[in-house]
Amino acid sequence: MGELNRRIVTDGQVFPGDVLKVDSFLNHQIDPEIMHEITGKWLEYFKDREITKILTIEASGIAPAIIVASTLGVPMLFAKKATPSTLTNHDLYTTPVHSYTKNVTNEILVSKKYLSPDDKVLIVDDFLANGEAALGLADLVEQSGAEVVGIGICIEKSYQPGRQKLDDAGYEVYSVSRIQSLANGRVEFLSE
Amino acid sequence: MGELNRRIVTDGQVFPGDVLKVDSFLNHQIDPEIMHEITGKWLEYFKDREITKILTIEASGIAPAIIVASTLGVPMLFAKKATPSTLTNHDLYTTPVHSYTKNVTNEILVSKKYLSPDDKVLIVDDFLANGEAALGLADLVEQSGAEVVGIGICIEKSYQPGRQKLDDAGYEVYSVSRIQSLANGRVEFLSE
Repeated sequence: MGELNRRIVTDGQVFPGDVLKVDSFLNHQIDPEIMHEITGKWLEYFKDREITKILTIEASGIAPAIIVASTLGVPMLFAKKATPSTLTNHDLYTTPVHSYTKNVTNEILVSKKYLSPDDKVLIVDDFLANGEAALGLADLVEQSGAEVVGIGICIEKSYQPGRQKLDDAGYEVYSVSRIQSLANGRVEFLSE
Repeated sequence: MGELNRRIVTDGQVFPGDVLKVDSFLNHQIDPEIMHEITGKWLEYFKDREITKILTIEASGIAPAIIVASTLGVPMLFAKKATPSTLTNHDLYTTPVHSYTKNVTNEILVSKKYLSPDDKVLIVDDFLANGEAALGLADLVEQSGAEVVGIGICIEKSYQPGRQKLDDAGYEVYSVSRIQSLANGRVEFLSE
């Protein structure tokens, strides 16, 4: 069992409604050691991809994204969430992203200046569940003409449709932890 | 002139209404090299403080915070922004923070679990202008009984009241870049 899975078992909390809380080490308080563990696995998996930029979405994706960017010596870019009303700006790539947990659709956006057709972009995020955020980020990259070289995820809820959607769309996804079930308050991992 | 000031002169953009845009390297696209430059200065300035935790606020503070946390081998914690209506939770420290740029007051919050009276907390953020965010973060720390050992800032608008407010409150502030004026679209730095 990898370090992240071990940590999920030790410190994660499962709540009714399919909620896995990992805010003691991943997305509120952040343990830099586990973060380096995760980013090290992404870097190993996506080596030789000639990555030129790391893209994530605020806020929880930023910590792993800057560590990867830092190791590779490339810039990172984080998409911002915005209400549609603020988007009169033609200097932005935007795309709608639906949040199932909050049942709300927000636009996410990046400045056109920071994605170019020459870019080979690694997308990273903390969770993959319905895949809306990752697909939205991939759409921003596609709009710019840049290439998505892969998608690195900390924790994937493999029983939700996101992974399949990304596979079907032809993206290469590597999730450090793959969870098969949270039934009865117990975390079960997908066996590889 | 330090690297950050040089970069502000080269790549920053001054807009009417006292706006300095540094989103090509600091708070949208992030250059890991300048981030390490900044965090290295904080670490040098606040060495020997026996820091046990780094506290920042989403989203732009997260990148420098995780680098500092990573170097020191301590956890980082980021405060979240929330609307007051969501705050019925007694497990949270909360405090109101007014944004002058957006003219709106939000609550910021951290889980009580992640700040304890034993903690020596370094607060970091990307900008210091009116000081509302930094004072809010300091208030969260004080509520927990922990100690604020210092406040590290990337860019301070020294002509705005934030720095004075933090000085008056007895906090030790170190800003890597101190801007004296943005008048006439020109960046002038405070001479030390």
